[in-house]
Amino acid sequence: MQILTQPLNELLQQVATRTDKQANKPEVESTVAAIIDNVRQNGDAALRDYSQQFDKVALTDFQIPQAAIEMAYENADQELIDALNLAKRNIISYHKKEIQNGFVDAEQPGVVRGEKIMPLAAVGLYVPGGTAAYPSSILMNVIPAKLAGVNKIVMVTPPQADGVAQSVLVAAKIAGIDEVYQVGGAQAIAALAYGTQTIPRVDKITGPGNIFVAVAKKQVFGQVDIDMIAGPSEIGVIADEGATAAQVAADLLSQAEHDKLARPMLVTPSLTFAKQVSAEIDEQLVTLPRRNIASASVENEGFIAVVDNIDDAFTLMNAISPEHLEVELADAMSYLNQIQNAGSVFLGYNASEPVGDYVAGPNHILPTGGTARFFSPLGVSDFVKRIQFVDYTRSALAKEVKAITTLARVEGLEGHARAVESRFSENGVSSK
Amino acid sequence: MQILTQPLNELLQQVATRTDKQANKPEVESTVAAIIDNVRQNGDAALRDYSQQFDKVALTDFQIPQAAIEMAYENADQELIDALNLAKRNIISYHKKEIQNGFVDAEQPGVVRGEKIMPLAAVGLYVPGGTAAYPSSILMNVIPAKLAGVNKIVMVTPPQADGVAQSVLVAAKIAGIDEVYQVGGAQAIAALAYGTQTIPRVDKITGPGNIFVAVAKKQVFGQVDIDMIAGPSEIGVIADEGATAAQVAADLLSQAEHDKLARPMLVTPSLTFAKQVSAEIDEQLVTLPRRNIASASVENEGFIAVVDNIDDAFTLMNAISPEHLEVELADAMSYLNQIQNAGSVFLGYNASEPVGDYVAGPNHILPTGGTARFFSPLGVSDFVKRIQFVDYTRSALAKEVKAITTLARVEGLEGHARAVESRFSENGVSSK
Repeated sequence: MQILTQPLNELLQQVATRTDKQANKPEVESTVAAIIDNVRQNGDAALRDYSQQFDKVALTDFQIPQAAIEMAYENADQELIDALNLAKRNIISYHKKEIQNGFVDAEQPGVVRGEKIMPLAAVGLYVPGGTAAYPSSILMNVIPAKLAGVNKIVMVTPPQADGVAQSVLVAAKIAGIDEVYQVGGAQAIAALAYGTQTIPRVDKITGPGNIFVAVAKKQVFGQVDIDMIAGPSEIGVIADEGATAAQVAADLLSQAEHDKLARPMLVTPSLTFAKQVSAEIDEQLVTLPRRNIASASVENEGFIAVVDNIDDAFTLMNAISPEHLEVELADAMSYLNQIQNAGSVFLGYNASEPVGDYVAGPNHILPTGGTARFFSPLGVSDFVKRIQFVDYTRSALAKEVKAITTLARVEGLEGHARAVESRFSENGVSSK
Repeated sequence: MQILTQPLNELLQQVATRTDKQANKPEVESTVAAIIDNVRQNGDAALRDYSQQFDKVALTDFQIPQAAIEMAYENADQELIDALNLAKRNIISYHKKEIQNGFVDAEQPGVVRGEKIMPLAAVGLYVPGGTAAYPSSILMNVIPAKLAGVNKIVMVTPPQADGVAQSVLVAAKIAGIDEVYQVGGAQAIAALAYGTQTIPRVDKITGPGNIFVAVAKKQVFGQVDIDMIAGPSEIGVIADEGATAAQVAADLLSQAEHDKLARPMLVTPSLTFAKQVSAEIDEQLVTLPRRNIASASVENEGFIAVVDNIDDAFTLMNAISPEHLEVELADAMSYLNQIQNAGSVFLGYNASEPVGDYVAGPNHILPTGGTARFFSPLGVSDFVKRIQFVDYTRSALAKEVKAITTLARVEGLEGHARAVESRFSENGVSSK
């Protein structure tokens, strides 16, 4: 992995902003728009056509029967079930703390104000086919929605000639998904956004997918809510010589193996340590099954930056705003206040990033590409909406008429002023 | 206003989904994309060119000097200042209750998990020029951001030949905006998203604007966060004969006067009351200054639906998911649990909708077009991000290694398994 030793201000220029390698593709946009239109108009018939055309699977029924899900569960390795149940318990206990309550405020005489927090009525989860169908991600998407109180959670996943992966069905069962449909691509997103004869319309669509899925999610945004569009995985590690080079290298490779565009980053005040980690990466790559992917990521996207001190390391990492941030320093918790921008933080020598991918409990669906500056991990708040309310007595309203009508008239909205004044005129209409 | 008396299931078909009248305009998309590119590359010089071209104003300096803002404040009517200060107090006292705290969870031995809530570093507010520059909206955008802890709040507004409206500068001062720049349109959005020599890059852009502003916000989404794209205003009223027809009519008109596409809606179990309100609307329209706008809204977009009973009224309103919902019924608070979808609710005979536009305290930036199904009013949570963190002791990690490696290997991610195992092998590298 390349070692950068420039001064901090040059590093900030060079690595803090990453070039967007996933440019818009107008032909994808128009293909997706046509698919969405077709599904809106022709519903299930369009879904069947696309399954035949794109997935080479002839489907009569989209829904996977509950019996098939139960059978996958019965046949699953106990180790997998135990691991998913451990993950589920920890994800629940963490996300429970995110649950918000509404409030009622009656501090002012005659005025009741408040906020009611309501779960979304229905949510759809897209699960990709093939090797990217991660059981762990099903838990991460579904559990916060369940804790929010969402009543109906449906999953869509591309039909496969040899059936949907059993581990996906097991995770769907453990997560508590209500309905699973075999439909993928932009057509699945369209079905969830608008509903078809078979597939219910939902209020929010979450989950990753290929470029067609991502573009479709963008296009239906507004008709439904969506989660963020995830980019390639990132890991930033801040470490000094107190850390173990082999462990840091292994953590960097755990993200590099996701994607050729994944970005493993180490920032350290020690050139010696930088060289040790770089050598470890080379060595560990040799036996890594996904070494083709990981080495492309390491060579083309990754870097090790050597900085003057730990403060500079945090300055650089905050500018990068990584999806995952490991703080491999003694007394790691004491650096928490220096972290401005990151999706999920792993403190100390033991909190290896994959702990968070699977069992720690915090969500692993995280903002990428620098968007941790303003986006948050997926959580319970993504599956609720707030509804405001107010109630006034006539005398409480009377005290505010002057302010309301003044502002309404400054804004040229006479009708607004009259609406309030109508409460105080004899025939109910403003005389003014 | 047309009176509909069909059965509920037909009403649900007819009025619950509104046709989108603001279709995408490809030529606007490409114009906006070119403007954004130009601002990214040429910064202030591009802004100056566009000010000349679009606003017919030659600017050397974009920032409005603090002295000009102070002067606007000194010269303002005391009534306006009092009204804005009353609104500010109530908006603060309401939104304070929305402030969330992070958490630390140490329930499991050797594991610390938590969530840190951080304000966005900088936020930009777009304020339209002309008659749509509402001082009240400045308070509604800025106060939640301030309460969230946002450190830098900048405002942009189109340059005007006769200067920016004094009431806007007064509101900017009272809200506590840090910097005000005279730049408008898509170029202002580009400047906030990418920064120029003069205008700082922000993390989130809020505020309404014309079609160019709306499209620009969509295009920079991801580079920065944005608030929702607001559609035409909506008011739904549920009322029976206990309400006063003149007051209900005045409330409906208060939203109709915003926009020819605004949508005033009344649902009532009484045909008699429906007719009274319709007659009142006609009468009140005669003297309403903005009657041209309001009558177009009433005739083309509005309706009165007569339903069998109050339960049906709520069913219909929940399907519509209106931006504003008035419950003009006795014991209005008791219906709160029947409301599933609405932006802001006004309970009882006195809570006329404009109370919420100006002084009640809840936000007036609300989801429109049925999006209250899944979107929320603007609030403090829009100006923060969450950062997750975990810390493990070695022995706590040891208990979870089995689950982590099982899941990693099921997902084909050997590097993930090895990263965790590296904590337990002699040389720091997995032997497996």
